[in-house]
Amino acid sequence: MDYSTNDSKSTSKNKVVAVVGGGLVGALNACYFAKRGFQVEVFESREDIRQAKIVKGRSINLALSHRGRQALKQVGMEDTIVSKGIPMHSRMIHSLNGTQSPIPYGKKGQSVFVITETGAMTFLRAAGAKEEIQADLIVGCDGAFSAIRKQFLRQSRFNFSQTYIPHGYLELTMPPINGEFAMKPNYLHIWPRNTFMMIALPNLDKTFTCTLFMPFDEFENVTTGDQVIEFFQKYFPDAIPLIGADALKRDYFHLPAQAMVSVKCSPYHLSDKCVLMGDAAHAVVPFYGQGMNAGFEDCLVFNEIMDQLNEDFSAVLPEYTRVRVPDDHAIADLAMYNYVEMRSHVNSKWFLFRKYVDNFLHMIMPRTVIPLYTMVTFTRTRYHEAVKRWHWQDKVRNDIVHSSLYKDVGMVVGHDDLQGLRLLVEPVGPGTASNCLTWRL
Amino acid sequence: MDYSTNDSKSTSKNKVVAVVGGGLVGALNACYFAKRGFQVEVFESREDIRQAKIVKGRSINLALSHRGRQALKQVGMEDTIVSKGIPMHSRMIHSLNGTQSPIPYGKKGQSVFVITETGAMTFLRAAGAKEEIQADLIVGCDGAFSAIRKQFLRQSRFNFSQTYIPHGYLELTMPPINGEFAMKPNYLHIWPRNTFMMIALPNLDKTFTCTLFMPFDEFENVTTGDQVIEFFQKYFPDAIPLIGADALKRDYFHLPAQAMVSVKCSPYHLSDKCVLMGDAAHAVVPFYGQGMNAGFEDCLVFNEIMDQLNEDFSAVLPEYTRVRVPDDHAIADLAMYNYVEMRSHVNSKWFLFRKYVDNFLHMIMPRTVIPLYTMVTFTRTRYHEAVKRWHWQDKVRNDIVHSSLYKDVGMVVGHDDLQGLRLLVEPVGPGTASNCLTWRL
Repeated sequence: MDYSTNDSKSTSKNKVVAVVGGGLVGALNACYFAKRGFQVEVFESREDIRQAKIVKGRSINLALSHRGRQALKQVGMEDTIVSKGIPMHSRMIHSLNGTQSPIPYGKKGQSVFVITETGAMTFLRAAGAKEEIQADLIVGCDGAFSAIRKQFLRQSRFNFSQTYIPHGYLELTMPPINGEFAMKPNYLHIWPRNTFMMIALPNLDKTFTCTLFMPFDEFENVTTGDQVIEFFQKYFPDAIPLIGADALKRDYFHLPAQAMVSVKCSPYHLSDKCVLMGDAAHAVVPFYGQGMNAGFEDCLVFNEIMDQLNEDFSAVLPEYTRVRVPDDHAIADLAMYNYVEMRSHVNSKWFLFRKYVDNFLHMIMPRTVIPLYTMVTFTRTRYHEAVKRWHWQDKVRNDIVHSSLYKDVGMVVGHDDLQGLRLLVEPVGPGTASNCLTWRL
Repeated sequence: MDYSTNDSKSTSKNKVVAVVGGGLVGALNACYFAKRGFQVEVFESREDIRQAKIVKGRSINLALSHRGRQALKQVGMEDTIVSKGIPMHSRMIHSLNGTQSPIPYGKKGQSVFVITETGAMTFLRAAGAKEEIQADLIVGCDGAFSAIRKQFLRQSRFNFSQTYIPHGYLELTMPPINGEFAMKPNYLHIWPRNTFMMIALPNLDKTFTCTLFMPFDEFENVTTGDQVIEFFQKYFPDAIPLIGADALKRDYFHLPAQAMVSVKCSPYHLSDKCVLMGDAAHAVVPFYGQGMNAGFEDCLVFNEIMDQLNEDFSAVLPEYTRVRVPDDHAIADLAMYNYVEMRSHVNSKWFLFRKYVDNFLHMIMPRTVIPLYTMVTFTRTRYHEAVKRWHWQDKVRNDIVHSSLYKDVGMVVGHDDLQGLRLLVEPVGPGTASNCLTWRL
């Protein structure tokens, strides 16, 4: 890609932007700043991903949806990346008895892409550990355990939280059979099993990456190869021949179960010198499929603000915090909400009844009632506005549920005016019922 | 105090306990461990408080109530400390027009003590900055910005949050008049003014320490001596002659407004080697008067578990985390809840109506409906159980409120079964209405 054509303001020409972290968001940011004519330096502590031996077991496959694609498009990378992905039009639910039922994500033509390679976007340098650099702007894209963010913690009035969930995850590989995918490729395969679940996403090499999500407590109960087979026999019998019993026994113990953390903080900037993006600013649990998309959208939003405020960092950075914090907090909360909900409400009759009402509402008012999942995944509606709208729809839905309960069951159920906080108390919202990436369906 | 009489198990005799932090909780902990026969070393980075020049403006006066007294009693320190405090039987509300109205805390004989001196409890050593120490147990009592806790952050699956509130605080001194207190001494004086407020607590030297709580934004609007006088003339006219106009103009700018942070984390221990107590484990905002009391109760609870589990650190530490985390999180949430509520609900009619119902319920069922404030301040009911009980009372109260509304106003108001999360959405609970230390009354 040729960024030598500099279409940006002259101010940027002599300014150095140090991007710390050469992962997904750091690499995309480097493109954005280079395109504006800044001198970009990318610092990455790991070795070059194009030469490194790939460490398996620590990835969760990434789903690229609308926001991420828009962010890639802006720097002309959309097609390159999408061509290396596999579209998933639908989810495929595996029941205990082995039957498979597809559930589409949204309307026709709305797909989520599984990204299998990003090396072509990565900028790397062999940076000495103690090399001192002087930059006009430091962009911290160094992930959930960000070293840049640690400097923020020393400042007064920096809000920060990191929350580990009781679940861990473990990766297994499902190899091709006779050179072909072992299951239908254009699906997110899901085995929902109450407090735990397995998902499988297709890779370009015709394998599937299977991810088992389970409480750490339960991982601790499975300690031998025989127990693994016994466990799979009980919960995922159809997956045993596809993964292979021997591989299963071996790979299950390849790495211990990995932890998942949710990180929120505020502000995202320090004076006019430093800004956080991606997981460094907002690591989310992987239950809404938005982690990478939110990080990519950070770059896009920052770029939009750079246009509006003429690349003046002293104005751009506070504005980025003001605009982006509520949206990133909203998606972090939604991902955690999906996780909590999955654990507690999957069997509730109230949940099932509301799900029914959701589907009905969306059917009769497809433009008025837009499922939350659709707003989040297939539009650029600001995350916090999607949540606000969801609350409003929720109120409408509640009125219908309650008046119907009142009529049918003779029970009086009301609501208060604390809608602003409903996210925290509602069992489930519209959209998650029929459009959710997760496994409660 | 003589701790040479060792009534503890022989195991403790050769074990070294390093208490990091010689503040309130560190000092009390040193007493507890010494009493059990451990070799206690206390590390404190500040100079000896008995010789140091006192820095004014960074304290918020401390209210000692039941839990704190019980913890002091166990090591024989209750009388020593209480004799240096001033009992506050009641609050005194200052209205804008200068009238003063007392509101008692609880029943007769229930007082909160203002602690004015703790030097007698402080253990100090001149510890070199890089001195390496080997201890069998490290007890981190080093406050809200704990260096010990920072080590926990490096461990996997350590949950942590720090939240700064938009308010800051600023201290002023009200001198004696003709050698006597300028206002009635046995009261917590409160000037409630919606989004900000001032309080004044008595000191042994017949001064009052006044603390002004206000959003940082508003502090920024007052930048000259004349603006200070103008501001006080508008909101606290009766305080100007008592503080003195010249002192007010000068002292207001002595220090910038100080930030307030709420810290929560979990677990409180690392293997069998390290444990956090006091603000290091749970800094709370000062709106429930329980910060010191919760820290002191940490020591007492740890001591009780040491008895139960025979001083076996490998069992005591996880049990302390299991028992204490939910209680400390509950009091941190309650303190924050009081802060949020103060800002948003002080003028709501709904709030006033519920307050009326609370008072009525407590009057007719004094044993069944115990105000939350009483449970927290005058009993050792576990904090999280007090909150649970409050939710139950809340449900009863809601039923009454709703049925009365239904009858009187013809309005249907219901409730759902999400009582477990009500803390987050309720405008106010019983107890806070008639018994709260804060300023909404």
